[in-house]
Amino acid sequence: MSIQIPRGTQDILPGTVELWQYVEAQARDICRRYNYKEVRTPIFEHTELFKRSVGDTTDIVQKEMYSFKDRGDRDLTLRPEGTAAVVRSYVENKMFGDAAQPTKLYYIGPMFRYERPQSGRYRQFVQFGIEAIGSSDPAVDAEVIALAVDYYRSLGLSKIKVVLNSLGDPASRKAHREALIQHFEPRIEEFCGDCQNRLQKNPLRILDCKKDRNHELMKTAPSITEYLNEESQRYYDKVQELLDMMDIPFEKDSNLVRGLDYYQHTVFEIMSEAEGFGAITTLSGGGRYNGLVQDIGGPEMPGIGFAMSIERLLLALQAEGVTLPVETGLDCYVVALGDRAKDYAAKLVHELRLAGASAEKDYLDRKIKAQFKAADRVNARYVAVLGDDELDRGVINVKDMATGEQTEVSLSEAAAYITKK
Amino acid sequence: MSIQIPRGTQDILPGTVELWQYVEAQARDICRRYNYKEVRTPIFEHTELFKRSVGDTTDIVQKEMYSFKDRGDRDLTLRPEGTAAVVRSYVENKMFGDAAQPTKLYYIGPMFRYERPQSGRYRQFVQFGIEAIGSSDPAVDAEVIALAVDYYRSLGLSKIKVVLNSLGDPASRKAHREALIQHFEPRIEEFCGDCQNRLQKNPLRILDCKKDRNHELMKTAPSITEYLNEESQRYYDKVQELLDMMDIPFEKDSNLVRGLDYYQHTVFEIMSEAEGFGAITTLSGGGRYNGLVQDIGGPEMPGIGFAMSIERLLLALQAEGVTLPVETGLDCYVVALGDRAKDYAAKLVHELRLAGASAEKDYLDRKIKAQFKAADRVNARYVAVLGDDELDRGVINVKDMATGEQTEVSLSEAAAYITKK
Repeated sequence: MSIQIPRGTQDILPGTVELWQYVEAQARDICRRYNYKEVRTPIFEHTELFKRSVGDTTDIVQKEMYSFKDRGDRDLTLRPEGTAAVVRSYVENKMFGDAAQPTKLYYIGPMFRYERPQSGRYRQFVQFGIEAIGSSDPAVDAEVIALAVDYYRSLGLSKIKVVLNSLGDPASRKAHREALIQHFEPRIEEFCGDCQNRLQKNPLRILDCKKDRNHELMKTAPSITEYLNEESQRYYDKVQELLDMMDIPFEKDSNLVRGLDYYQHTVFEIMSEAEGFGAITTLSGGGRYNGLVQDIGGPEMPGIGFAMSIERLLLALQAEGVTLPVETGLDCYVVALGDRAKDYAAKLVHELRLAGASAEKDYLDRKIKAQFKAADRVNARYVAVLGDDELDRGVINVKDMATGEQTEVSLSEAAAYITKK
Repeated sequence: MSIQIPRGTQDILPGTVELWQYVEAQARDICRRYNYKEVRTPIFEHTELFKRSVGDTTDIVQKEMYSFKDRGDRDLTLRPEGTAAVVRSYVENKMFGDAAQPTKLYYIGPMFRYERPQSGRYRQFVQFGIEAIGSSDPAVDAEVIALAVDYYRSLGLSKIKVVLNSLGDPASRKAHREALIQHFEPRIEEFCGDCQNRLQKNPLRILDCKKDRNHELMKTAPSITEYLNEESQRYYDKVQELLDMMDIPFEKDSNLVRGLDYYQHTVFEIMSEAEGFGAITTLSGGGRYNGLVQDIGGPEMPGIGFAMSIERLLLALQAEGVTLPVETGLDCYVVALGDRAKDYAAKLVHELRLAGASAEKDYLDRKIKAQFKAADRVNARYVAVLGDDELDRGVINVKDMATGEQTEVSLSEAAAYITKK
């Protein structure tokens, strides 16, 4: 009986994995240019970390986490997102004391949520995210958004849209909150039970409600934009001004509130506008947070970051019909005829590999015709043919598969000859 | 209260992570040259997979696995090693039917074992491994060993030693097994209880016993080498001959048996001989296996592979005093003085990044002296200085930190000027 892959997970196989390697290498490169450094945190953390940061009452914590006890009776959870662990690491390693500030970090790695599997949604998925902790300069907000946009553009996505909003500082949020309560309270009995609960706890969440989205009070609800105090407005204006200077177009959407309560000032999402991309069009999202570092036991430090799913990114590339410049094909396939030639082929292939070329030979004792077919199948740029008679003469026949040109090269120089080409 | 990292795991932080990035990139490159393709399997698998492949009675399965039930009541386990999942993926994705044979795969990723943490041993650790499935050609055995050796050499390790053995084919193993039973049986009551149990089940394991290692029968025990039949001996000779041709030195050790029962013919380990490397000197190990593909539900297919821990590799590099050519340092730091210049600096930094250079500016409203210090701290190759007066004149001052040379460049050409350098 064969054993299968766990439901909701996937193998990434040769033929597809090259796309992953490419977009990840590009992510690392853009982080290099933006001066973000990688941090690698463990696959699992103490469950408490996510309860405290993601929030005890969220769907993630209540329904979607892979939690278990280890053999030492610790409560552990496979990380459902990246920010909590990065902030945990920031605090535990006292990065707030580093000389270079703000602390600019990135991560790429698997995350885990027990959700119903569907197209583009897996229980194990890969996130690329960044966090800039330690500065309240609006230039950091603009930089974080620019990094995401430049990344998408560098991969060839053109149908993307940045949606921007400001949730203001705590005073602005409080004024808005009171206005929302005043707005909904007189007719709250017309709303669903969830909304009635949300009214006092978190009236902002009413705006997210799927059941009541067509209620007439929704359209007329007070927007956070009207309640931004002067400082918050100035902050928001500055972010926009800097984005304009960097040629990063954006749309403002005062309904964009993002899922997490700790956001303030800048929040944003980047969506794909490609046709046929499907219902979930958000490619990435992020925002500025305060309080999170403190919640996890650190000093009061402002932060901002984003996270994006690589699975979604690859879907967006597909929807736009972008072909990534992935290198495949082999530099040289060595075809060998005869026992001695076969052994020598192993040596020659090794020399080629040492010299930096990708090289292959037959390992199935195939006839010469089948070896040529194999060379063709791996898209070899050069095919070197060695028989026992060539071996005796100390030469090998090298064929350039693009031009058809054939050259007899001395065996001792073959690796250098092919590698140079 | 701060939340800490789970015991036995580590954060890999900027300053160290660059070493990981480097050795992993090199691993990918050597796999490219040897024509091994990456496969990425999930972090967890059905527990049954490891019971069946690693073995129900092994320490790994009995004591060291992170096993748990998911919310759908599935028995899952964080992978304790890489081969089982790769073979599961090979079978499930019917790679044995691919046109290109043998199937040559590699993986790099975290593995998990609940062991007592100690120097260089973590509960989450990273393994790089390869598997070549579908060929019984001794040239594949030589290639697998050569890849590991070339990898270590390319990183700068010189004090490494390949230890080689052959366990022969099943007939040879059977003959050896009978000889072992004959050898130990008359005096088995002098051995520990474990050894007494092993006598009939798996007498080869007696040779691994730590308690009885000084018993006189240990030294005189029959060696597998004496029991290799003609075919097995020819196979072993061929592997050695090919390694000689590739200039891969090795030592033969007939006591090297490796932990797993499914090995046959070639087994090998690569050890560090660096002083001060510590008690565990094995850097990697592997061997040829048969039966594993079948155990997991596939057809009868021979395979061979190795696995190495990246943690151990980094310790070995450290023990040999190897400095990896890791690139750090920033291409350009933009120092800005004045509000308008500060905004323009954000634009210029963005232009530099778009042009491929790594660039940074101040985000903490620091004075000019502190900005220069920050530029110094990140080891900037160029420092571009912009004041409001320069901005009005449309120029910027670019200083080459290596030579001290200063050049006034027009603002519109600054990014191109610096990037070209």
